[in-house]
Amino acid sequence: MKRVAVIGASGYTGRELGRLLRGHPSLRVEGLFGGREGVAPDAPELPVDDVLERLDWSRIARCDGVFLCTPHATSAELAVRALDAGTKVVDLSADFRLIDPEQYRVVYQHTHPAPELLKEAVYGLTEHARGAVAKARLVANPGCYPTSILLALRPLIDAQLVDMNAPLVCDAKSGVSGAGKNPSGRTHFGASHENFLAYGVGTHRHAPEIRLHAGTERIVFVPHLLPVFRGILSTIYVPPAAGVNARNVAACLSERYRDERFVRVYERGMPELNRVQMTNECHIGVADCGPFVVVVSAIDNLLKGASGQALQNMNLMLGLDESAGLS
Amino acid sequence: MKRVAVIGASGYTGRELGRLLRGHPSLRVEGLFGGREGVAPDAPELPVDDVLERLDWSRIARCDGVFLCTPHATSAELAVRALDAGTKVVDLSADFRLIDPEQYRVVYQHTHPAPELLKEAVYGLTEHARGAVAKARLVANPGCYPTSILLALRPLIDAQLVDMNAPLVCDAKSGVSGAGKNPSGRTHFGASHENFLAYGVGTHRHAPEIRLHAGTERIVFVPHLLPVFRGILSTIYVPPAAGVNARNVAACLSERYRDERFVRVYERGMPELNRVQMTNECHIGVADCGPFVVVVSAIDNLLKGASGQALQNMNLMLGLDESAGLS
Amino acid sequence: MKRVAVIGASGYTGRELGRLLRGHPSLRVEGLFGGREGVAPDAPELPVDDVLERLDWSRIARCDGVFLCTPHATSAELAVRALDAGTKVVDLSADFRLIDPEQYRVVYQHTHPAPELLKEAVYGLTEHARGAVAKARLVANPGCYPTSILLALRPLIDAQLVDMNAPLVCDAKSGVSGAGKNPSGRTHFGASHENFLAYGVGTHRHAPEIRLHAGTERIVFVPHLLPVFRGILSTIYVPPAAGVNARNVAACLSERYRDERFVRVYERGMPELNRVQMTNECHIGVADCGPFVVVVSAIDNLLKGASGQALQNMNLMLGLDESAGLS
Amino acid sequence: MKRVAVIGASGYTGRELGRLLRGHPSLRVEGLFGGREGVAPDAPELPVDDVLERLDWSRIARCDGVFLCTPHATSAELAVRALDAGTKVVDLSADFRLIDPEQYRVVYQHTHPAPELLKEAVYGLTEHARGAVAKARLVANPGCYPTSILLALRPLIDAQLVDMNAPLVCDAKSGVSGAGKNPSGRTHFGASHENFLAYGVGTHRHAPEIRLHAGTERIVFVPHLLPVFRGILSTIYVPPAAGVNARNVAACLSERYRDERFVRVYERGMPELNRVQMTNECHIGVADCGPFVVVVSAIDNLLKGASGQALQNMNLMLGLDESAGLS
Repeated sequence: MKRVAVIGASGYTGRELGRLLRGHPSLRVEGLFGGREGVAPDAPELPVDDVLERLDWSRIARCDGVFLCTPHATSAELAVRALDAGTKVVDLSADFRLIDPEQYRVVYQHTHPAPELLKEAVYGLTEHARGAVAKARLVANPGCYPTSILLALRPLIDAQLVDMNAPLVCDAKSGVSGAGKNPSGRTHFGASHENFLAYGVGTHRHAPEIRLHAGTERIVFVPHLLPVFRGILSTIYVPPAAGVNARNVAACLSERYRDERFVRVYERGMPELNRVQMTNECHIGVADCGPFVVVVSAIDNLLKGASGQALQNMNLMLGLDESAGLS
Repeated sequence: MKRVAVIGASGYTGRELGRLLRGHPSLRVEGLFGGREGVAPDAPELPVDDVLERLDWSRIARCDGVFLCTPHATSAELAVRALDAGTKVVDLSADFRLIDPEQYRVVYQHTHPAPELLKEAVYGLTEHARGAVAKARLVANPGCYPTSILLALRPLIDAQLVDMNAPLVCDAKSGVSGAGKNPSGRTHFGASHENFLAYGVGTHRHAPEIRLHAGTERIVFVPHLLPVFRGILSTIYVPPAAGVNARNVAACLSERYRDERFVRVYERGMPELNRVQMTNECHIGVADCGPFVVVVSAIDNLLKGASGQALQNMNLMLGLDESAGLS
Repeated sequence: MKRVAVIGASGYTGRELGRLLRGHPSLRVEGLFGGREGVAPDAPELPVDDVLERLDWSRIARCDGVFLCTPHATSAELAVRALDAGTKVVDLSADFRLIDPEQYRVVYQHTHPAPELLKEAVYGLTEHARGAVAKARLVANPGCYPTSILLALRPLIDAQLVDMNAPLVCDAKSGVSGAGKNPSGRTHFGASHENFLAYGVGTHRHAPEIRLHAGTERIVFVPHLLPVFRGILSTIYVPPAAGVNARNVAACLSERYRDERFVRVYERGMPELNRVQMTNECHIGVADCGPFVVVVSAIDNLLKGASGQALQNMNLMLGLDESAGLS
Repeated sequence: MKRVAVIGASGYTGRELGRLLRGHPSLRVEGLFGGREGVAPDAPELPVDDVLERLDWSRIARCDGVFLCTPHATSAELAVRALDAGTKVVDLSADFRLIDPEQYRVVYQHTHPAPELLKEAVYGLTEHARGAVAKARLVANPGCYPTSILLALRPLIDAQLVDMNAPLVCDAKSGVSGAGKNPSGRTHFGASHENFLAYGVGTHRHAPEIRLHAGTERIVFVPHLLPVFRGILSTIYVPPAAGVNARNVAACLSERYRDERFVRVYERGMPELNRVQMTNECHIGVADCGPFVVVVSAIDNLLKGASGQALQNMNLMLGLDESAGLS
């Protein structure tokens, strides 16, 4: 049994990790460290048994791996210390997703606390970085929106099926859990239930992350807030390279993900959020629509978009079966 | 045109009043006074045009009537001052709903700021206090749960159809707007959506209010939180007096409310929240169920349970058609 | 008092019209004619008092105007007969929205029952066809998605702010009421609640309607199903003409709609569904986003997207104040 | 590996069993037999991989156990044949929950197809019938409402903490999945979302079942429909025997369920639906409330209230660990 800990375990992603780890066959939880508060049972499907503890570095030192579910800036500082203590780290914050410290400073309005680690960190889009993740000390777990979009786009870009001179619209919709557990006017039931809206148009922090890891500046990203708790569905308008249509795109994706356990490409029909909620899966559907090939991608933002993919990565880093604790 | 103002206009009930008053044929809004913040458009069906202003007593002095949508304790202080300024007052807080200042102190854990007004204040369950309301300077607007329960119970108690020696269970369910606009762990989408719970069992502050105005200590009241925004539905298990059944109960209620515009007694079937949402109506259904006559009562908690009834009362106090602005 | 009737009054749009007409100051309802069933109170905010009657042409003949809330193909047949009877007609179906009977046959898979009326019918996007509507005998009420999109796009195309050589992505999201009142696997609570999906990608019947009335074939339209009851929000990625940005686009829209009662252009921020639900308004927000100007448009699909706009049109056709019964 | 099959696998309970069985360590699924249709992915968290097959009795004959998820009357006929084929049977319908065929005829308006089996069948409220279930050929799986109520009540009645001369109000609230997968006016999103209602007052078929297995005719039962997909929460007003209060009741329940894996009695606070959704657990909270001890019980209606408890029972009947496949 390998030992792991979660730091910042009081939020949605930390608590989701607590739930996953309790059912994991070969990981032992050294501790769920976190905020001052106990775990209030204020969200569906979250455990009520986990007891949060005060962060104890002597216990972190005993761990083989640590999950950081802390806010950006805090995460980078904790990562330095955890790596010094000899554990491997999967960071669920945005601290190691970009490469250029100057871009980080502009996007997150904060000087990066550990710029020397930016190059070492591996961007853990698991299906596209498996080898590097397995060898990494530090993995930057991708953002939820980027995961849903990059899993759909990366194979198409790699296979040169995309017209890279045309803009690529990613219209993405997320459940309220993406906004985190802290109460706010925006997450109040009265403001989200029976409502829908676009937000962060032109300014959302996930846009630079998507562009960087898609390898093109031509990504146009608009996020929306859905009145559901879990899930992200992204509608991606792919400008195809000459002669490419939905059939080619679907074939490319099917081929690329044929042996993947957590990515499913539909032969027909389109994914829906309720087919991926509470799973670590990404479902992808494809259709022609005018000059575009429309690709629709759905994930559970708290699992494949956060804690599930984080566990996939940690499993690899610790030499375990990648899907352990995830099915 | 009479002039009115709302003090505490930033919360749900204040904003609901703002919406109603904008459509009122014979009331002019002197001002919507309120919190420090502007009106954030964070709830369905609320106006986005109202501008909140800082409380200005010289303008209150110009008003014929004032609505207090302020928290208890604050309301009593404002009521004193508004009455001194010569306006009539409908207070939507709990400050004048009880009669005994000592009971108020125990229930609200606060010494009543204006005990001398407790006897003057009229409990504004409109259909049962029309004459007194019309003459009142100060009306205590009933609580949302009490309104839904008392409208169903009062005629039955008055007509002696109830066995007053047996306990009377009121199992009530309210939408999230009843918890107010302030963000909290409880009103977070993640904690209320797709959830349901009982709360305040044996301790809710509306229980003494219901008992006082029903005239019996045998009321047993348990509130629940529904994953809807608006509405209260109360299921009331009436122990009938000897020889009384659902038919008698329905006949009594139909007779009592025959000429009422805002109370509807069903001949058959049961009310549902969606028939009363966005209306000032109370719908009541009746059925035999074992030893009880079950009476189900539904209202919109923000209208008949708060701002709608408040406007009904103010209309009466200012000599207007009781239903003006409410249909 | 002018007289109007609704044919097909049992569905959502028919019942919404019934509700609006009850509050109309200068229209008298001759009859709500409709399905075999009575009006089941199975949706929020719908009236429970309307009684549906069997269609009676002698009473239609007495009417000044008739609303057709019937399915396509049926509507065209009823329209012929109603016009013959001398009444004016607003048809809420798709029967008169296209101009070419052959295109109609392809899209709706039905030979048009009254092709001679296709040219006479006025496409009732009220703010853009006011004069023609006022003189029309027959108005084709626009579809819900087209209304939300065309209100945002038409002024920009007219003012040549759009690059007409680039594709124009319209990513639209509708509440469940858009699917109608008939129970189906898709409208089952278990299939729509806490879910989200794209549908009709590349095949939805509103796409040709939008293209026709936008005057460009380059519209790309993907509809989605939201877990809310009412509302459509469309996110439109406008490829701007050279030198045009969000500021120009917002200024154009503000100018165009300055005097309109039912269209509001935001100076800042973005519309949300809950600001337009239960209103006849369209709210529009604008922002730069990479190479595009993103325009977000929100309406209540049952009001501005159907019955509200239908009443706006009928008011005009009967010489009444356009906003009567709608505020 | 024992073999099991599900007959009637297309409904919610059948599909939930399919999901559970796929993760079961020591049961092999011989077949999921069912309706004519395939498994439409129309509900959250349901599997999309199960393929329904046409019922094949030769394959049933190979099974050690069969789950019947068929409607009442059909179930009894299938049970006879399955038992003849030598398999054990857990019936999720109501066919074997009552004992008296005459009462069955009255309640279900159908002559019982296999009255000779009524006495043999064991009522599978697992925690209260473990020994009998383990030896049974035929188990009647309890109804969802009865499970939530009887788990709370039975220990109190057994321990004589209840005043058996007073009526005992059970105010119960269920999610929409309790109404089944078939589309209807009642299960339409527009009729259940943002709504709440009481139904079957005085007439619901679960009332006789609860009375029979509670051993008292004084149960008063009113069910309600919640706008959530999963879960039942029952608020039970227990008239205590002389000298009994919440403390005694909580102690009794805690003691009774101390070693139970699937029942949790709260020391303080009250259960909420989101703590039991997607689990096979029953959570129980207790508080004094006037003359009553209020007991609140929450389960997932599709798991502990149906398929989860059915699997618990089948595990016992086949000599397996009772919780296999359920944690």
